[in-house]
Amino acid sequence: MRIRIDLAYDGGDFHGWARQPGLRTVQGEFEAALATVLRLPEARVVVAGRTDTGVHARGQVAHLDLDRAALDASAGRSPEPPLVTLVRRLNGILPADLRVRRASEVPAEFDARFSALWRRYAYRVADRPEYADPLVRQHVLIRSRPLDLAAMNAAATDLLGLHDFASFCKPREGATTIRTITRLHWEREPSGIAVAHVVADAFCHSMVRALMGCLMTIGEGRQDVSWAGERLDAATRSPAVPVAPAVGLTLEEVGYPPTAELAARLLVTRAKRDPGEVR
Amino acid sequence: MRIRIDLAYDGGDFHGWARQPGLRTVQGEFEAALATVLRLPEARVVVAGRTDTGVHARGQVAHLDLDRAALDASAGRSPEPPLVTLVRRLNGILPADLRVRRASEVPAEFDARFSALWRRYAYRVADRPEYADPLVRQHVLIRSRPLDLAAMNAAATDLLGLHDFASFCKPREGATTIRTITRLHWEREPSGIAVAHVVADAFCHSMVRALMGCLMTIGEGRQDVSWAGERLDAATRSPAVPVAPAVGLTLEEVGYPPTAELAARLLVTRAKRDPGEVR
Repeated sequence: MRIRIDLAYDGGDFHGWARQPGLRTVQGEFEAALATVLRLPEARVVVAGRTDTGVHARGQVAHLDLDRAALDASAGRSPEPPLVTLVRRLNGILPADLRVRRASEVPAEFDARFSALWRRYAYRVADRPEYADPLVRQHVLIRSRPLDLAAMNAAATDLLGLHDFASFCKPREGATTIRTITRLHWEREPSGIAVAHVVADAFCHSMVRALMGCLMTIGEGRQDVSWAGERLDAATRSPAVPVAPAVGLTLEEVGYPPTAELAARLLVTRAKRDPGEVR
Repeated sequence: MRIRIDLAYDGGDFHGWARQPGLRTVQGEFEAALATVLRLPEARVVVAGRTDTGVHARGQVAHLDLDRAALDASAGRSPEPPLVTLVRRLNGILPADLRVRRASEVPAEFDARFSALWRRYAYRVADRPEYADPLVRQHVLIRSRPLDLAAMNAAATDLLGLHDFASFCKPREGATTIRTITRLHWEREPSGIAVAHVVADAFCHSMVRALMGCLMTIGEGRQDVSWAGERLDAATRSPAVPVAPAVGLTLEEVGYPPTAELAARLLVTRAKRDPGEVR
């Protein structure tokens, strides 16, 4: 059976998602807890978005394959459904900065990474002392210069749609930097905090933070509104585009197609994302 | 000149508001920072709500009296208004869990404590794994039993209005436990987190947390809806009423009258709150 697990974490004390020997990572902590609760020698999961060091998640999604007998055995004599027991036991041993929100059985065609239609990130900034809130300081960047949201939103329109985002990506051998941004908009939360909502089919390495660094440079009046589009057209990274600090960035949600479309989606994404693999 | 200062803090690492020798308190940290920035031997403030150990604040209000010359001297040659400089410098040396949001000049009749018309607290609970959010874990209580908000709101109606809240107060020599609760309502935030909004003219020691402990006992189905009113009528503390953990409690806002009514308000509050004082 295949299990989808929804996760939330405070990335501040993790060296990112991906397991690394000797470092505290979300995947490392999570897979260790899974192995303990399921009494397996090891557990391996596939994730929707491999977040970098310090980046948070409220809507991270992972899947793992599991023997139904192992799940039933781990639940013991609990009268609850086995997946409810699994969530409760995982949260009982996981650290406070990593929580399992839900576990559900999914069809074999569901792949946390390749089935995903889109990823939604939020980037939050308290740009005035009035908005600084110590209760959310782990996931809201504090800046001293007020941001001009209208200017940032005007600049953002040049980034919408299908583009080569090489100017905003750390290059990786053989990987494409072509992505489709379907939403990129700044607004004020009721608290006054500025938040950018960014939705794309997928993001390459450091892309959201470079986009945010570019737009905040404009929002602070240090570059013109046209600069974001110019950087995009240059199609090459520039040291003038700062990579915004990880603290403000949260993976909020991952979107998937309805079950009936999962198999078709998988073929499309695999063919597009990895040109070396046939279909 | 009299200065009003609006403060926010994460109470988790403080031994409450009130200065205590050898302990890390909000007042202690804040007055030390004021003395440093204003280059005074010491600074003393009056506060609206003396929060207990572990209790948070987003809308705490304090006042202090200051020599205008001392303020101007502290601002140096900065072209900003002196109070903007004061806020910036205070935040520059305060720890990350304590922020100054605003400083403003107020009339001499403004008293952070005695002018206050009402205090609004919020108490937040994540009562299902789906709602647990590591990014807000310092100020949201995690409970495993789902809360019945309708039952808690039905029980809360018995607590509204002017009552002797002795059942919910830690007694203090010569202090009244008569208070007026004008709002006490549970609802769900968009995230699913349950939040109680509680407004009263003032609260006695541990009152909000005892009210929350009482209502959550009802919300978890361990007491009937009538129990809150019965506890109130008993007018004596009972070990059956748990004091809810401080982690979920935040002082959100303090309400003041318009400037023209400040002088009159001061007389009324002083007369009511301290029967030993004439008027």
